[in-house]
Amino acid sequence: MRNLSRHILRPLLIVLAFVLGARAAAPDPLPSWNSGPVKQSVVSFVSAATSKNGSGYIAPEDRIAVFDNDGTLWSEQPIYVQFAFALDRVRALAPLHPEWKTTQPFKAALEGDMAALQASGEKGLGELLIGTHTGMTTEQFAGTVANWLASARHPQCNCPYTDRVYVPMLELLSYLRANGFKTYIVSGGTIEFVRAFAEPVYGIPPEQVIGSSFVIQFKLGADGKPILMREPRIDFIDDGPGKTVGINKFIGRRPVFAFGNSDGDQQMLEWTAAGSGPRFAGLVHHTDATREYAYDRTSKIGRLDKALDEAHAKGWTVVDMSRDWRTVFPRAGTK
Amino acid sequence: MRNLSRHILRPLLIVLAFVLGARAAAPDPLPSWNSGPVKQSVVSFVSAATSKNGSGYIAPEDRIAVFDNDGTLWSEQPIYVQFAFALDRVRALAPLHPEWKTTQPFKAALEGDMAALQASGEKGLGELLIGTHTGMTTEQFAGTVANWLASARHPQCNCPYTDRVYVPMLELLSYLRANGFKTYIVSGGTIEFVRAFAEPVYGIPPEQVIGSSFVIQFKLGADGKPILMREPRIDFIDDGPGKTVGINKFIGRRPVFAFGNSDGDQQMLEWTAAGSGPRFAGLVHHTDATREYAYDRTSKIGRLDKALDEAHAKGWTVVDMSRDWRTVFPRAGTK
Repeated sequence: MRNLSRHILRPLLIVLAFVLGARAAAPDPLPSWNSGPVKQSVVSFVSAATSKNGSGYIAPEDRIAVFDNDGTLWSEQPIYVQFAFALDRVRALAPLHPEWKTTQPFKAALEGDMAALQASGEKGLGELLIGTHTGMTTEQFAGTVANWLASARHPQCNCPYTDRVYVPMLELLSYLRANGFKTYIVSGGTIEFVRAFAEPVYGIPPEQVIGSSFVIQFKLGADGKPILMREPRIDFIDDGPGKTVGINKFIGRRPVFAFGNSDGDQQMLEWTAAGSGPRFAGLVHHTDATREYAYDRTSKIGRLDKALDEAHAKGWTVVDMSRDWRTVFPRAGTK
Repeated sequence: MRNLSRHILRPLLIVLAFVLGARAAAPDPLPSWNSGPVKQSVVSFVSAATSKNGSGYIAPEDRIAVFDNDGTLWSEQPIYVQFAFALDRVRALAPLHPEWKTTQPFKAALEGDMAALQASGEKGLGELLIGTHTGMTTEQFAGTVANWLASARHPQCNCPYTDRVYVPMLELLSYLRANGFKTYIVSGGTIEFVRAFAEPVYGIPPEQVIGSSFVIQFKLGADGKPILMREPRIDFIDDGPGKTVGINKFIGRRPVFAFGNSDGDQQMLEWTAAGSGPRFAGLVHHTDATREYAYDRTSKIGRLDKALDEAHAKGWTVVDMSRDWRTVFPRAGTK
């Protein structure tokens, strides 16, 4: 036994200790996620997707992952970031539009009358977006958004809006890409607004951003050079069932992985989950009034009601923000 | 001098011979292109794009290359491949549509009356496409196209339609990708038709195919599972100025490299060429009545008139098929 111990068991123990040590030392790809069934469901899915001979294996070309943006990758409270941009643009453009002082919803926007703005409903929101997002070239508008993102500050953190991203979701995007997934944003926001920051903030290039859009028209400018003009008409609304249509149009393949946070993501999750083979459908449930916000079934922004019921019924992964996320925002401090 | 020769010149000559030999042995990435200014313009552009400190350098994320499909990547003669598909579908679906026997343009399609079909114009073509391309789910239609591509034969070569691709353009696509370019198809054909073969034939995944489209609608099927239905309405025409709109929508960046073959590609080439920094705009001129077809200014299919004038005026690269291409199709034999 002594010899056995010296010649076989000891080296074996050393090897075992080395293997376990190496495993323990492997960095956690999702350090901002607390351990538990939610984190485990993500890791299990991705591990299986990349294990060639397992039943959860997914061919590299099918590793398509889609994410909602507002409320899923960054905060949508107290108002959508794009709405904050639109309000700032109304103020900036007001001198060119004296009629706005007496026309709704612009009057309400200029006076900061949120009740009147809300009362103007979807029609009012559409008019506000058309008044501030169209009538210029695509390049002019991209410049305006970039300037705004660089200078505007979120009212609560006094930080850039792009600091209102969720660290756990940044980790998840990186983790998926490191495992061969192609990550897409599928946003109800307008496409060029999200494209203005998706690459530096999320590592997602413009061609992997799908969103709502205005009609664009090719024209020849005064100098004879071609330009693309943003026309005052809605082209496509990438929300609810529209998200599945957008995915089919832009990607042409059904995703295997989808993450959302509201009823506007329900059909995208259903469409993803209904494919054959392994599937992941996830929801961010905003349960953290201390570090972010707590809202769901009755919220005017990001209402999560029917999709939450469906998630429970179908066993989708539901992130409980206060329980599952160790960190929320990149900067510590007040929400 | 003798010593100098032995100790310095000889080793230098050996090194030089080795370097030159290695260079001569490097395989030509475009073996089906004859030497000359056209091939040179492609190679110079790509070499400069990847030479980090040169004035022609293009950052990897900006290396976006767009290609028309019909007449640029594969033959569009004697009729568009998608039109051949539509005619076959009319014949296959006719038993379900007894009214087609007496209704134009279906009557003409069933009788093979090309003159009457042509007389029905764009309106007739639209009706033919709607009658054969809509009213089913996206997955059903993808299956129909795949089956057709596998079984249909081109009338001249008696080979699959996917054998009507141009070998020099396959080489060009590979060459660009090997140099970090992302290759896209921007087709007037409908998007899901091109997506059905773009990956196996061109190495271009579905998400890098832009095309015309029908309205798609999300629905719940009889079994409660979500489906995407192809509705009998045109959503987007990706031709002429529409190609720049499609590129802006899908890619969100202006390409640096564009290749087309007809007036339908003119605005795409203008838009690409008008950007700042190095640009490549190319046209395939069909000049080869022996190996393929010779047509340009008066052709009903793939008319090349205004874009040819602009190419000459602006110094775009114009491929003279009979002069510049050593090989046209993958299979030798009659056209």
